[in-house]
Amino acid sequence: MRIEGVIMLFPCLISIIYGDHEGFFYGAVAAFLIITGFVGCRFIPKNQTIGVKEGYAATGFSWIVLSIFGCLPFYLSREIPVFTDALFETVSGFTTTGASILSNVEEMSHTALFWRSLTHWIGGMGVLVFLLAIIPMSGGSNINLMKAESPGPTVGKLVPKMRYTALILYVIYLVMTVIEVIFLLFGGLNLFDSLCLTFGTAGTGGFAVKNDSFASYSLYIRWVTAVFMILFGTNFNVYYLMIMRQFKKMFCIEEIRVYLALVTTATLIVFVNIIHMYDNVATALTDSFFQVASVVSTTGFGSADFDLWPSTAKFVLCFMMFMGACAGSTGGGIKVSRLVLLFKSIVKEIQSFIHPKIVKKVNMDKKPVDDVVLKSTHVFFATYVIIFIVSMFIVTINNTDLVTSFTAVLASLNNIGPGLGMVGPTCNYGFLSLLSKWTLVFDMLAGRLELFPMLIIFSPKLYKK
Amino acid sequence: MRIEGVIMLFPCLISIIYGDHEGFFYGAVAAFLIITGFVGCRFIPKNQTIGVKEGYAATGFSWIVLSIFGCLPFYLSREIPVFTDALFETVSGFTTTGASILSNVEEMSHTALFWRSLTHWIGGMGVLVFLLAIIPMSGGSNINLMKAESPGPTVGKLVPKMRYTALILYVIYLVMTVIEVIFLLFGGLNLFDSLCLTFGTAGTGGFAVKNDSFASYSLYIRWVTAVFMILFGTNFNVYYLMIMRQFKKMFCIEEIRVYLALVTTATLIVFVNIIHMYDNVATALTDSFFQVASVVSTTGFGSADFDLWPSTAKFVLCFMMFMGACAGSTGGGIKVSRLVLLFKSIVKEIQSFIHPKIVKKVNMDKKPVDDVVLKSTHVFFATYVIIFIVSMFIVTINNTDLVTSFTAVLASLNNIGPGLGMVGPTCNYGFLSLLSKWTLVFDMLAGRLELFPMLIIFSPKLYKK
Repeated sequence: MRIEGVIMLFPCLISIIYGDHEGFFYGAVAAFLIITGFVGCRFIPKNQTIGVKEGYAATGFSWIVLSIFGCLPFYLSREIPVFTDALFETVSGFTTTGASILSNVEEMSHTALFWRSLTHWIGGMGVLVFLLAIIPMSGGSNINLMKAESPGPTVGKLVPKMRYTALILYVIYLVMTVIEVIFLLFGGLNLFDSLCLTFGTAGTGGFAVKNDSFASYSLYIRWVTAVFMILFGTNFNVYYLMIMRQFKKMFCIEEIRVYLALVTTATLIVFVNIIHMYDNVATALTDSFFQVASVVSTTGFGSADFDLWPSTAKFVLCFMMFMGACAGSTGGGIKVSRLVLLFKSIVKEIQSFIHPKIVKKVNMDKKPVDDVVLKSTHVFFATYVIIFIVSMFIVTINNTDLVTSFTAVLASLNNIGPGLGMVGPTCNYGFLSLLSKWTLVFDMLAGRLELFPMLIIFSPKLYKK
Repeated sequence: MRIEGVIMLFPCLISIIYGDHEGFFYGAVAAFLIITGFVGCRFIPKNQTIGVKEGYAATGFSWIVLSIFGCLPFYLSREIPVFTDALFETVSGFTTTGASILSNVEEMSHTALFWRSLTHWIGGMGVLVFLLAIIPMSGGSNINLMKAESPGPTVGKLVPKMRYTALILYVIYLVMTVIEVIFLLFGGLNLFDSLCLTFGTAGTGGFAVKNDSFASYSLYIRWVTAVFMILFGTNFNVYYLMIMRQFKKMFCIEEIRVYLALVTTATLIVFVNIIHMYDNVATALTDSFFQVASVVSTTGFGSADFDLWPSTAKFVLCFMMFMGACAGSTGGGIKVSRLVLLFKSIVKEIQSFIHPKIVKKVNMDKKPVDDVVLKSTHVFFATYVIIFIVSMFIVTINNTDLVTSFTAVLASLNNIGPGLGMVGPTCNYGFLSLLSKWTLVFDMLAGRLELFPMLIIFSPKLYKK
């Protein structure tokens, strides 16, 4: 709460610069958060050990509290007069989804736009906190998955080392953010727009500052953003290895190779599929790359209305939405490494039918993968599907058509933002029923926290001694 | 080949009764099959051991050969003049899918209609052959899955016992078929229609003899068929236990309880969702139950155009399509028991986060489930998803819309028949491109043979010494 309060002072600064009277509400909520935080810190429990269930539950509850207080300025300033909508927008921000209920972004105050984009940047950074600071404490199977995925910075259980690792990643995050801002300023954008768009890219969020997202920006701006979307969707271990000059190790990371290969393939397929709709090869290629980068990194910026593209292009984008970015990046989705593991375990299973006597381990980055990691990957996948089915059922109750319902859940659970049909790139989520909005709020949080922290808080066993 | 030849003599008999000149082609193909079969049997390999890979490969190739010869009469008699279409229709028959490329069923000869429906009945019976005669020989993980699922007839590796078990199941299958025919005759249908529709129900196929499938039949006919669809989608162990008077054990089978509970729930949801479209409660309830029974048993008969129903009803039907029937039935799909296992393993995983020290096994029918079974269930699921994605990608190349592409693959892979959109209950598969048709032919075979026998024949390692 104290950290959120301090961060909320930045939009206050913006309100002073632009003379928005909404700044008052941000200041008030910030003051309340800081004071409550300091008072709350006086009540420290004697037993401070964070076990597995405490870790997960704390993560889940923290994000809920963060979102509820984060939406208060929108609600109190009447810029988003309905509480559910304000919460939806804020959760969408923190979880770096970028799905909006606003039909007209351009009429929002600078303060609100800045806070909206800033939540993306915090949410993106927050993920690194989870991945490298909270989850390793739990000793759960995620740490093993990370170990399997990351030949880079070893995930130790010692606090100083973990903090050191986290610090390096924060620095990388900040430096990359600054570089993107500079590139965008060169493209002729003003500082405010550059900052907001960079926050959206860095956190792989997707809130833009124009109603048509990226459709009216120059090709240069689109290419810069697309490249940075890919970079922020890359496993951050790559940058660590780059700083350490371990270039050989860097190219050994299978996830990265698969990620880049799939992005290239998808861009080419989409390009071939949409070229007939364009007069200009450069624009067609830019839009293909931009949209693939946007959905694979789960950012969700739109440079074209891909809802009007042919089926194959739409299907490829949907597939990239499902997959999402690399583990250890700021992106969401199922993650490239999980798909690689799943694929390899299938190949192994088929081989074991042919040669039943050969016991072969699944390898990743030339190291054998632990069975626990494989099992938890399969369980993750199955849990994902069940949450998906239940959510989609709820969303259809309002008689929303199947493509809209399907992609609304997909875009929320994978933290992308726009889907197809009535939640396509030129539309928004405002028309959905309250029930659907709450379901998608849950999905956005579940997607960002990799499912289990949000599921555990519904388990009655959690509250037993 | 010999068995297929003998079976093909039945449509010859029909052609004599109805005076169709197409019977000649059935007779000719039958004669060829029987003669080639007898000649082929002279060349017996010295080593007759069927190992794991031989078992799977033999299964896959047998079905391909069966389908190719089965489609010849359609093609040679020019009733289906395009070879791909004739093959599609036959594979759809043998795999008990029921997806048709014919726009006008009523103009087909009695001989062709009878052969078409008979392939369903053989395909349905064939599955029992695989489940209880071929797969147990392989000693693969499927036998373990069956053991986990079946508290009924124990799956021994001794040939005499297995054959005895298979024999009992054949008798049950035949008796139930005869009972349904009698019920339909009571409803005023003629013997030919009763036989064809019963073949379609028993094999959970879905080929009908009218262009509007079941829409013009009486409520009585619809109810009889719906009940039998549910019965043929039930694990046949139930009937064995019933004959053995082990009623207590019968009600202990978790799969059956989940199956019946889901059918009831789905029927009620669909009923509530569509009642406003009907003048008459009885018809609304009949259509709800009929369509749920039709898709869950993966039969695919249509008593109403559910493509016009509201989103929730359509989504529930899609979910039931995914799930499919019970293991050990004639139905297709992922199977209820696999979903139950997946669900339980997720619950276990979440519990292990909360109480990491408690090692708990997943139980099914009050017995612990082996880890190998769980792993192979997860692998099955993942393989299923990958085949689904690749197939859907290919189908979209023709710019078929996403709902049509999605449900075409779903209806083929799960052996249902009708989907939504352009492959909805009132439409057919004729308009698809050759590439799409071949993809769906593969999907139908892969779905019927539970994926791996069809995948293994593409593995280069299979052909190495």
